[in-house]
Amino acid sequence: MQIQVRPRGSLDQLSQLEVERLRQNAASDLYQLYRNCSLAVLAAGIQSDDSEALLQRYADFEIRVLRRERGVMLELTNPPQEALVDGKLMRSIQEHLFSVLRDILYINDRFESLVHINLTNAKHITNVVFEILRNAKALTTGGKTNMVVCWGGHSITEPEYLYTREVGFQLGLRDLNICTGCGPGAMEGPMKGAAIAHAKQRNKDGRFLGLTEPSIIAAEPPNQIVNELVILPDIEKRLEGFVRLAHGIVIFPGGVGTAEELLYLLGILLHRENAAEPMPVVLTGPKESRGYFDEINEFIGATLGPRAQSRYHIIIDDAVAVARCLKQHTTNVKAFRLQTDDSFAYNWRLQIEPEFQLPFVPNHQTMANLALHADQEPAQLASSLRKAFSGIVAGNVKASGIRAVQTQGPFKLTGDPNLMRRMDNLLKAFIDQGRMKLPGTTYHPCYEIQTG
Amino acid sequence: MQIQVRPRGSLDQLSQLEVERLRQNAASDLYQLYRNCSLAVLAAGIQSDDSEALLQRYADFEIRVLRRERGVMLELTNPPQEALVDGKLMRSIQEHLFSVLRDILYINDRFESLVHINLTNAKHITNVVFEILRNAKALTTGGKTNMVVCWGGHSITEPEYLYTREVGFQLGLRDLNICTGCGPGAMEGPMKGAAIAHAKQRNKDGRFLGLTEPSIIAAEPPNQIVNELVILPDIEKRLEGFVRLAHGIVIFPGGVGTAEELLYLLGILLHRENAAEPMPVVLTGPKESRGYFDEINEFIGATLGPRAQSRYHIIIDDAVAVARCLKQHTTNVKAFRLQTDDSFAYNWRLQIEPEFQLPFVPNHQTMANLALHADQEPAQLASSLRKAFSGIVAGNVKASGIRAVQTQGPFKLTGDPNLMRRMDNLLKAFIDQGRMKLPGTTYHPCYEIQTG
Amino acid sequence: MQIQVRPRGSLDQLSQLEVERLRQNAASDLYQLYRNCSLAVLAAGIQSDDSEALLQRYADFEIRVLRRERGVMLELTNPPQEALVDGKLMRSIQEHLFSVLRDILYINDRFESLVHINLTNAKHITNVVFEILRNAKALTTGGKTNMVVCWGGHSITEPEYLYTREVGFQLGLRDLNICTGCGPGAMEGPMKGAAIAHAKQRNKDGRFLGLTEPSIIAAEPPNQIVNELVILPDIEKRLEGFVRLAHGIVIFPGGVGTAEELLYLLGILLHRENAAEPMPVVLTGPKESRGYFDEINEFIGATLGPRAQSRYHIIIDDAVAVARCLKQHTTNVKAFRLQTDDSFAYNWRLQIEPEFQLPFVPNHQTMANLALHADQEPAQLASSLRKAFSGIVAGNVKASGIRAVQTQGPFKLTGDPNLMRRMDNLLKAFIDQGRMKLPGTTYHPCYEIQTG
Amino acid sequence: MQIQVRPRGSLDQLSQLEVERLRQNAASDLYQLYRNCSLAVLAAGIQSDDSEALLQRYADFEIRVLRRERGVMLELTNPPQEALVDGKLMRSIQEHLFSVLRDILYINDRFESLVHINLTNAKHITNVVFEILRNAKALTTGGKTNMVVCWGGHSITEPEYLYTREVGFQLGLRDLNICTGCGPGAMEGPMKGAAIAHAKQRNKDGRFLGLTEPSIIAAEPPNQIVNELVILPDIEKRLEGFVRLAHGIVIFPGGVGTAEELLYLLGILLHRENAAEPMPVVLTGPKESRGYFDEINEFIGATLGPRAQSRYHIIIDDAVAVARCLKQHTTNVKAFRLQTDDSFAYNWRLQIEPEFQLPFVPNHQTMANLALHADQEPAQLASSLRKAFSGIVAGNVKASGIRAVQTQGPFKLTGDPNLMRRMDNLLKAFIDQGRMKLPGTTYHPCYEIQTG
Repeated sequence: MQIQVRPRGSLDQLSQLEVERLRQNAASDLYQLYRNCSLAVLAAGIQSDDSEALLQRYADFEIRVLRRERGVMLELTNPPQEALVDGKLMRSIQEHLFSVLRDILYINDRFESLVHINLTNAKHITNVVFEILRNAKALTTGGKTNMVVCWGGHSITEPEYLYTREVGFQLGLRDLNICTGCGPGAMEGPMKGAAIAHAKQRNKDGRFLGLTEPSIIAAEPPNQIVNELVILPDIEKRLEGFVRLAHGIVIFPGGVGTAEELLYLLGILLHRENAAEPMPVVLTGPKESRGYFDEINEFIGATLGPRAQSRYHIIIDDAVAVARCLKQHTTNVKAFRLQTDDSFAYNWRLQIEPEFQLPFVPNHQTMANLALHADQEPAQLASSLRKAFSGIVAGNVKASGIRAVQTQGPFKLTGDPNLMRRMDNLLKAFIDQGRMKLPGTTYHPCYEIQTG
Repeated sequence: MQIQVRPRGSLDQLSQLEVERLRQNAASDLYQLYRNCSLAVLAAGIQSDDSEALLQRYADFEIRVLRRERGVMLELTNPPQEALVDGKLMRSIQEHLFSVLRDILYINDRFESLVHINLTNAKHITNVVFEILRNAKALTTGGKTNMVVCWGGHSITEPEYLYTREVGFQLGLRDLNICTGCGPGAMEGPMKGAAIAHAKQRNKDGRFLGLTEPSIIAAEPPNQIVNELVILPDIEKRLEGFVRLAHGIVIFPGGVGTAEELLYLLGILLHRENAAEPMPVVLTGPKESRGYFDEINEFIGATLGPRAQSRYHIIIDDAVAVARCLKQHTTNVKAFRLQTDDSFAYNWRLQIEPEFQLPFVPNHQTMANLALHADQEPAQLASSLRKAFSGIVAGNVKASGIRAVQTQGPFKLTGDPNLMRRMDNLLKAFIDQGRMKLPGTTYHPCYEIQTG
Repeated sequence: MQIQVRPRGSLDQLSQLEVERLRQNAASDLYQLYRNCSLAVLAAGIQSDDSEALLQRYADFEIRVLRRERGVMLELTNPPQEALVDGKLMRSIQEHLFSVLRDILYINDRFESLVHINLTNAKHITNVVFEILRNAKALTTGGKTNMVVCWGGHSITEPEYLYTREVGFQLGLRDLNICTGCGPGAMEGPMKGAAIAHAKQRNKDGRFLGLTEPSIIAAEPPNQIVNELVILPDIEKRLEGFVRLAHGIVIFPGGVGTAEELLYLLGILLHRENAAEPMPVVLTGPKESRGYFDEINEFIGATLGPRAQSRYHIIIDDAVAVARCLKQHTTNVKAFRLQTDDSFAYNWRLQIEPEFQLPFVPNHQTMANLALHADQEPAQLASSLRKAFSGIVAGNVKASGIRAVQTQGPFKLTGDPNLMRRMDNLLKAFIDQGRMKLPGTTYHPCYEIQTG
Repeated sequence: MQIQVRPRGSLDQLSQLEVERLRQNAASDLYQLYRNCSLAVLAAGIQSDDSEALLQRYADFEIRVLRRERGVMLELTNPPQEALVDGKLMRSIQEHLFSVLRDILYINDRFESLVHINLTNAKHITNVVFEILRNAKALTTGGKTNMVVCWGGHSITEPEYLYTREVGFQLGLRDLNICTGCGPGAMEGPMKGAAIAHAKQRNKDGRFLGLTEPSIIAAEPPNQIVNELVILPDIEKRLEGFVRLAHGIVIFPGGVGTAEELLYLLGILLHRENAAEPMPVVLTGPKESRGYFDEINEFIGATLGPRAQSRYHIIIDDAVAVARCLKQHTTNVKAFRLQTDDSFAYNWRLQIEPEFQLPFVPNHQTMANLALHADQEPAQLASSLRKAFSGIVAGNVKASGIRAVQTQGPFKLTGDPNLMRRMDNLLKAFIDQGRMKLPGTTYHPCYEIQTG
C-alpha cells in the first residue's frame, strides 16, 4: 500500500536544489533516523512507549522523498492505517510528517552547509536553537508572554494525569498556551485540558507546541493535540529551546527525565546573571503526589541548597492557584522583557553556560567520570546531576543507551557517599512509583549507584 | 455579588430605541422566562436535567438590562460561580448570554413589531425561522453542505454516549459540522468527538450549533462545546430549523423526544413533493442498542409502512460506516441544491405542512383529542403520533406540562387498540431502558394509554 | 442586452418573503425612483451633473427584481456599457447596485412595517438614521475615531480640486478615512488623495464612505473611490448621518449645498448642550480661495455672531496643517467618547433640535414663509438660513425643485433688508465663481431675494 | 536629524548572530552600495533619473545597523524629509528599506556562507534566483497565474505614459497583477492604472512587484505603488526573475533597456525545449508609437527571423484587446503548469542557457569582443545583441559604465556591416525619440558602431 503526500505546514516552497539535497540525505545514512521519526509521527495515537516494538510492527514501512517540478513530495509505503481517513492522511499528521522532514533533513543540511556556524561555540548554539525554532515558525511576533512549558512524566498515575489536565484547563481558561515534550502522560494532559478551555474562551489560536528530539520521538510520539512540532537535534538544544521559549514553567510528577529537566533549569537559574530573571516555576501535583514533591524538594535542598529551593513554588492539589500564579507572573515577564528590550518570543538574555549546552553523550565512560560530589558550586553540581539523570533516561528509552546497557551492563555512577545515597533513594522511589516505564512492564535499572 | 457584562457575539450595536425596548421587555412578564433562560446558560456545565432544582438553587439570581450611551449592558446579581474565571465571564457563556437576550427579547419584539408577519401563516413561519437563524448568523454563505443534525436522548447509557462521541469523531474527521438540541447525552457526545477530530484535521472553523427553545433550555442547558446557540420560540419552529439546516441527520438512541423528532422527520419526508429530496438519515447506536432500533423500526413499519422505513438507514456499531454514508450523501445534497437553485444553508424547497408547523400546545384536552388511528395517510398519522410524543416530553420536563400533570393527573391518550398497544410497548421500553430521566431518579409516567 | 446579477455586499441572505416584498415594491410607484438611482450608480464614471440628460440617454434601461429559491437577483436591461468588464459588472458597481436596492426598497419597507417607529418623533429619527447606517455596515466596532467628513462643491476650480486631493492625501497619510456626499469635485478629490496615501501607508482597510439621498444621487453619482454607499431618505437624515459619524469635518469651497451644510453644522454646535462637544471643523482651500472664505466668515460673523465663528478654524493653502489639526483633535474626540461612554462610531450624545431633523420640503409657499430676520436665536436663524439654501439646491439640481421653478418661476425669499442683502451678495459670489453648475453651462437663478 | 526604525515586512526575526553579521557587512566595503540603495528607496517620489545628483543632494545621509537584544534596528541620519510623515517613516518606505537590508546584506551573506552554492553553475543560479524571490515572499502558493510583467522605458512620452496606465487599468479590471522594473515611466504607469482598477474590483490583494538591481535602483527608484520590492544581484538574475515569475509579458515603448529585455526574452523562447511554452508576449503602445514597433519588428525579423517574430503579438492603441489577450493566455499558462506539474509561481521548466545567466560585465574589452554577426543560431545572436544593449544601458545610467565611458571614451561595437547598420538605425531612432534620458537633458552616446 502506497500513498503520496504533498507538503503541508512546512517545505511547500523548496528549490529544486533543496529537494535534490533532501533526496540525497534521505538516501544516506540519515535514512534510518528519518524513517523512524516519520514512523513515530504516523503512529501517534497508538499508545506505547516501546519504540522497538513499534519499529518491529511496522518493519515494512518505507518513506521516499520525491522530486516534482514544483517541489517535494513524500511517498509512504505501508503507513499505519491509524494515520489515514478514507485513504488520506489526517492533516495534523501530514503537518508533523513535514516537520520531521524539515527538522531531520532540511535543517540538518542547512547547518552543515553554513561555513560560519560552529556548533561547539556556545553563542552559536543559542543562535542555532533560535534558527530552528524560527524556521519552524515557533517564534511569534505578537508581543504576548503566554507560553507555559509543562514538564512531567510520560508514565504517571490516573489521578496525576487527571490533575495535569485540570491544570491545563485552568491555564487555558486564562488564555495561556502549552509547550511540552509532546509525548503521553504529563505531556498530553495539560494540552487536552487547555484545548477544551480555549474552546470555552473562544480562543482559536491556542498553541500546543511539542519540542522533541530524534532519539526520543519514537518512544514518546507527539500526542494528538500538538499543533506545532519541532525536533531539536539533541536533548541539550531541546532543553535550551524550552527555557528560552518559556514565560513560565510547571513541573508535574515524573521520573528521571523530569528530574533532569528540573536540575537543568535550576542550574541555569542559579547563574549570577540570571538572578533578576522573573521566570515563574511551579511544582505541582494532586494530593497523592505530596510525598513525591517532598522528596524532590528535600533532595534539592540537600544538594543545591535553599537558594535553589527559592526559585520554585510548590503548590499541591490546587489547579486554580497554579494557573493564577503563572498568569500573574507572565505579566512580570512581559514587563522585564520590555525593560531589557528583549524579544517576547525568545529569551536571549538568559545566561546558559557551555556545560549545559554542549551535548553530553552518555556511555559507560562519561557516566563513570561524572563529578558527583558536594564540594563544588551548586550550578556545577546541578550540571553533573543533570547529566547523570540524562544518561539514565538514555539507558531507559533511547536506542543507543539501551544497546550500550544490553552489551556492557548498567552504567556505574560514583561520588560522595552521602550524595549517592540520596540519589539512590530518589531513583528507587521513582521505580517504586512506576515512573520509569508505562504500566504493565517491569523495570530493570540501567544504572548502579556506587557510593565508593 | 454583581457583575456587568458587555455584549459579545450579538447585539453589540443596538440603537437607543432598541435598548429601551429591551429594558421594557425585560421588565415585563417576559422577565421570568428571560431570567431563567439566562440562568440556564450561566449554569451550563452543572450536570442536571432538573430545571426546578436549578431554579431553586439560584433563587437569588437576577439579571438587568442596562442602557449605556453606546448600547446595552447586562448586570448579573449572584450568577453561578462556575461561569466565571477570576471574576470575568467565560467568553462562550458571555456569547450565549447575549444569544438569550437576542432570541428571547430582541427577536420576539421584532416580530411583534412587524405588521405584515402573521404567525399562523405557514409560509410566514418558514420565513420567521429563516430570519431567526439569519439574525443569529447561523446561515453561512460559503456553499458548503456539511451540517449534520444529531438527535438522540439526553439520558443515555455509557456505551451509547461513547458511541455518539465516536460517531462525532468520525464525522469531524470528514470535516462535517454538528447541530444538536444542545443539551447533555447524545446532544453533547457527537460535538465532543467532532471537536477533537476537527483539531486533528486542523479545522478551526468547526461549527457546533445548538438549537433549543425557551421551555427546554433550563432542563437541557447548552453543553460546553456549542459555539452557536439559537433559541427558537417553540418546538415546531425548532424542528423546522433542524430539518431546513440539515444536510444529513443521525439519530441515536433516545426517549420520547427522539421519537418525536423521528416522526416529525418521516412525516415530512413522506410528503409527495419531498420524494426527490436527497436527505440522508441514519439511525445508529452501539451493538447494545440493536434491540432499541429493532423496536423503533418495527413500530415505524407497523404504523407508517415500508415507504417510511425506506427513508432511513440503520447502521449498528460502525461509526466509520455512518460517517462515510453521511459524507457521501452530502455530495448528493449539494448537487440537488445546485440543480434546484436552492440555498445551501437553508432548505427552502422542503415542503412542510401546516400541521407540522403550527404550535401544538399539549394539555389534557388536546392530548385526548389526538387522532391516533391507522385509518389515515401515513404523513397525517406521523403528525398525530409526533404530537402525542411531544406532549409526553412536556409532561416529563417542561414546566407547564409538569404542572398540568401534577394538578390534573396523567395525560390520557386514546386510539386504535392495536396502535395504542404498540405505542404502549415502545414507551414502556423507554422507561425500562431509563431513557426518560437522567440516572438516579425514578420515572413516574405522565400519560396513560387507553386502548378503548 | 440583458444581464442578471447576484447580490454582493448586501442582501445576499434574504427570506423569500423579503424578496417577494422587494419585487412588489419594485413594481410599485417606487419603481421610477429605484430605477433612476440604480441607473445613477451604473453610470458612475460618466462625468455629468445633469440628471435629466442621463435619464434621457438611458431611456431604455430597465431593472427587475427576480426571486430565486435561494434569494434575490437583479435583471438589468440595457445597462451603461461603462459598468461592465467583459460582460460582467464591476464588483464595486455590483455592490453599489445592491446598496440602492437595500436603501431604497428594503429599508423603506422595513420602516413602513415597524409599528412602533414614528418618523415625526425626533428621537425616532436619530434611531432610524442609526439603523440605516448599521444596516449598511457603516458603523464599525473597532474603537477608532478616524472618520473625517469632507464637504465642498461638486463644481470647483482646478486648483481647488487639486487642493482637495492634497488634503485627502495628507489625511490618508495619517490613517484617517474619508466620508463625503459621494459625487464629483470636492467629494471626490479627498478620497482620491487618501486612497493613494493609504496605499503608501499599507492601509488596506481605508474607508471611503459616500452618503447620498435619492433626489441627488442622479445629479451626483458615487465617484469611483467610494467603497461604502449609503442612501439616506432625505437631506435632513443625510446631514444627521454626516455629523453623527464624523470625528472631524473639513469644509472646502463650494456653492449653496456647502453653505447649507455649514449652517446646519453651526446651528447644531451652537446648541447649549453641545458646547463641550470637541468636534474639529476646518474651513480650507488653496490660496486662490482666500476671498471665498473671507466672504463666508464675514457672513457667519454678521448673522450668527462670533460664537459661531469660534467653532471653526480657517486654514488657507496648507494641507499638512489641516491634516495635523484633524489628527490631533480626533484624539480629543476619542477621549470625550470614552469619558461620556458614548459610541465611537455614532455620536449619540450630540443634541439636534427637531427643526434640523424634520424634512423641509421646499416649494414656493415654504420658501416664502422662512423667518429670515436677525431678531432670533443664532441657532434658530441658522436653521432658517439652512432651509433657504436647501431650497435653492433643490431648485438647482433636484427634479422636483427644477419642475416647480419651471412652472411657477423663481422661489421668493423675504426678510430683513440687511440680512437679505448679505445673502444676495453671497449667492451672487457663488454664481460669479461658477459654483452653481458644472462648467460649460449658464446658470439661471432659481430664486429671487426680496429685501421688502 | 536622526531617527531609528524597527523592521517591517522583512527581517523582524533575526538571530543575534545574523544581526552581528549584518552590522559587520554594513561596516564593510558593502557600505556604500547599501547606503546608496537605501537612499534611493528613501528618495522614491523625487522625480530624477540622475543618480549622481541624488547622491550629491543627500551627501550627509548615513545609515547604521543597530543590534538590540530582540533583533535589528536601523538608524538614519539626515534622511530625505519626503519619506517622513510627522517624523515617522511612511510604512511603504519602511518596508522597502528593510527589503534593501535583506537583499543587499542578508541574502548576500547567506549565499556567501553556503558551501554548496556555486554561482557559476547555471542550475545553481536558477535556484538562487528562486531563493531570493522566496525569501522576499514574492512566490505565492495560491495557484493563481495572474502576474503580468510589463517592460518599457523609464523615459516615455505623455501619450505613451497615459497609454501604459490605461493598459494597466484594463489588466487590473481583469484581476491581473503587475511586475515591472519598478522605476518611473512605463514601469509606473501600469501599476497606477491597475491599482485604481483593483480598487474598483474590490481586489485588496493586488500585487505590485518591483524587481531591481543594486546598480540601477538609484537611477530608477521604486515608484510609489510598488508593494513588493526585490533587489536581484545583477541584471541577468533580474531578467531571469522576470521571465520565471511571468504568466504573461507586455512590452511598451522604451529605449535600449527595453530592447535588451526583448532580445533576452526571444533568445530564451527560441530555445528548442521552450517551443511548447505558452508564454503570451504583447508589444503595445498608443497610435503614436506605431512607427516604433514597426522598427523593432523589422529589426527582429531581419536579425532573428520570422520564428522570433511569431513569439509576440503587436497590438496598437487598444488597451482592452491587450488585456483580453493576456487574460485568455494566462488560462493556457495555468493548464500547461498543471500538465507539466510545474509550480504556478516560478517557471522551473523554462530552459535558459548559461550565456543568458552568467553575468556580462560590460567594459571596453567585452563590448568590443561581442560576436555581432548574422552567421550564428538566432538564439546565440539574440544573446550577443542583448549584451550589446546591456552595455549601452550601463554606459547610460550605471555608475560603473558612466565612469568607464568618461575615462576611456565610448564603447566600440563591431560586427557585420548590415547588422551594425540596422543596430545603428535603431539606436538613432531611440535617441531621436528621447528614449535614452529623461526630458530636459541632452544625450551623448556612450557607444560607437563600427561597421568594419
